[in-house]
Amino acid sequence: DRTLKVFTLNSNPELAMDVAKLIGVPLGECSVSTFSDGEIQINIEESVRGCDVYVVQSTCAPVNRHIMELLIMIDALKRASAATINVVIPYYGYARQDRKAKPREPITAKLVADILQVAGASRVITIDLHAPQIQGFFNIPVDQLVGVPILGDYWESKQLDELVIVSPDHGGVSRARQLAERLKAPIAIIDKRRPRPNVAEVMNIVGDIQGKTAILIDDMIDTAGTISLAADALIKNGAKEVYACCTHAVLSGPAMERIGQSPIKDLVVTNTIPLQEEKLTDKVTVLSVAPLISEAIIRVHEQLPVSVLFD
Amino acid sequence: DRTLKVFTLNSNPELAMDVAKLIGVPLGECSVSTFSDGEIQINIEESVRGCDVYVVQSTCAPVNRHIMELLIMIDALKRASAATINVVIPYYGYARQDRKAKPREPITAKLVADILQVAGASRVITIDLHAPQIQGFFNIPVDQLVGVPILGDYWESKQLDELVIVSPDHGGVSRARQLAERLKAPIAIIDKRRPRPNVAEVMNIVGDIQGKTAILIDDMIDTAGTISLAADALIKNGAKEVYACCTHAVLSGPAMERIGQSPIKDLVVTNTIPLQEEKLTDKVTVLSVAPLISEAIIRVHEQLPVSVLFD
Ligand SMILES: Nc1ncnc2c1ncn2[C@@H]1O[C@H](COP(=O)(O)O)[C@@H](O)[C@H]1O
Ligand SMILES: Nc1ncnc2c1ncn2[C@@H]1O[C@H](COP(=O)(O)O)[C@@H](O)[C@H]1O
Repeated sequence: DRTLKVFTLNSNPELAMDVAKLIGVPLGECSVSTFSDGEIQINIEESVRGCDVYVVQSTCAPVNRHIMELLIMIDALKRASAATINVVIPYYGYARQDRKAKPREPITAKLVADILQVAGASRVITIDLHAPQIQGFFNIPVDQLVGVPILGDYWESKQLDELVIVSPDHGGVSRARQLAERLKAPIAIIDKRRPRPNVAEVMNIVGDIQGKTAILIDDMIDTAGTISLAADALIKNGAKEVYACCTHAVLSGPAMERIGQSPIKDLVVTNTIPLQEEKLTDKVTVLSVAPLISEAIIRVHEQLPVSVLFD
Repeated sequence: DRTLKVFTLNSNPELAMDVAKLIGVPLGECSVSTFSDGEIQINIEESVRGCDVYVVQSTCAPVNRHIMELLIMIDALKRASAATINVVIPYYGYARQDRKAKPREPITAKLVADILQVAGASRVITIDLHAPQIQGFFNIPVDQLVGVPILGDYWESKQLDELVIVSPDHGGVSRARQLAERLKAPIAIIDKRRPRPNVAEVMNIVGDIQGKTAILIDDMIDTAGTISLAADALIKNGAKEVYACCTHAVLSGPAMERIGQSPIKDLVVTNTIPLQEEKLTDKVTVLSVAPLISEAIIRVHEQLPVSVLFD
């Protein structure tokens, strides 16, 4: 029965606040500011000696700043004698740099794991890693939570008929299947092929979508190229309407424009990455992961299994 | 006789170019860019297998970005089988966070040392660490080069008369003494005291400055508060004229305005941190550390002592 404390850094202060409220603790007192030259200054303003500390920080944009904030906070907590330093990373950045696709590439997702550990992290709680292999980059416990139940509950509440759940590529099939099982719907897969080099990709659709309401699902939507092309292909091939959802709303560069111009009727995301004001358009629905994270923190703290949260 | 290769990242491309030229090698082919979401993408475009690689990168502003670039580059070089990864950090950022001055503070200078090592650095070459203790934060060799000879040569060439070398605080006395010995001049020290809490500091000057040409020296000038107050105090106490010099031209926030309004006639700095265009005023002289760094790299590569460069 060590004291549980929740701290936030600069990526997701609102989410962290909700998490603390649901757990029933005040958010830890801590200031995270910037010196004149751009260096990060962190002051933890209450004792953490002997406490189980949970730090909420997504490594979303500005990713390098957010990583350094997290590392410096871990360093300060370690030196302040926190008993355990549990880092809650709702969105784990640099996850797409998880292998050498070409010679002389870095594996930055592993680098981030290494530096979090050397800084002093005791545990990672995260949601929908881009590749589950990233768990193995750590030598400390990693609890990977799952966004599908949150998205599934939303779609259930919408009571849409004649659904088909669509994965925009082969990598996402198991996620689509999880959502399909919850919604008792069939799945379809978009099968991109480049017939010859330098020729545009052809979108084949594997599965029956004719006259159906399609829900595209992916772990993250970044520039929205894949998802908007997939939506076009679905409509062109006879789908009645298209919705889309993902856990991590990266939404960088041309994303909002592409989604605006696409046939996607509603884009459903979670708040693992907070959306800037201008991205909160009519087309976008944001669901909170605060209940999931707070439940996970309580279970970790009480040494109960976390997996029940998404079985 | 392993092949020596020099790479640059984004902090000091011009300095790195000069260093490579002086060593007589081409700069290594490498692209450092940014994905749409702000994540760093590094592609090393030539083999480094079995090579001794030197990567030039100051961790100046934007410091968090520059640190991550360096870490990712080290990770890529390690996986590409470089024999040794020598990081040349002309300016080592976060060096002022080198101790716990208050409870629950981080020691970020140590964190940076730890993450450079876990990424895979074999050696550090740096110039004028803010505190020499930072060498001990590493368990790999650290060659600390010294800026005083470069500054000393410049002042010698100016042939100023009746010099006194002034340290703006007690921490900088040994640096002031080094410069004074080269210039065969006496030293003076600015002794700041706060008589009571919340009362302005009083500047006492220890040493004779009456009618003399004072040269202030510090390791870095950041917001220029200390140095401009020191210059005022020197003039008020009878110095004939005041010059200033430092190795690291951080020059953030109000620095240029303060220097402009101060009695400092010429501010002499090095290019460990590149100066943006708007800071290159008439009052500022920039000296290059390229000869020093290139000589150090050659000596390290040939396993010769580096200390001769500043004895
Ligand atoms: N931040 C990023 N933005 C866009 N592409 C990325 C990013 N990070 C890595 N990649 C690329 O995405 C590909 C891996 O994505 P995936 O196949 O979905 O795992 C690789 O080709 C990476 O070079
Ligand atoms: N980037 C920075 N800008 C201004 N002050 C800093 C910075 N980093 C650390 N400090 C503070 O500078 C003091 C140490 O400076 P010094 O006494 O010169 O070693 C400590 O009080 C630090 O909190």
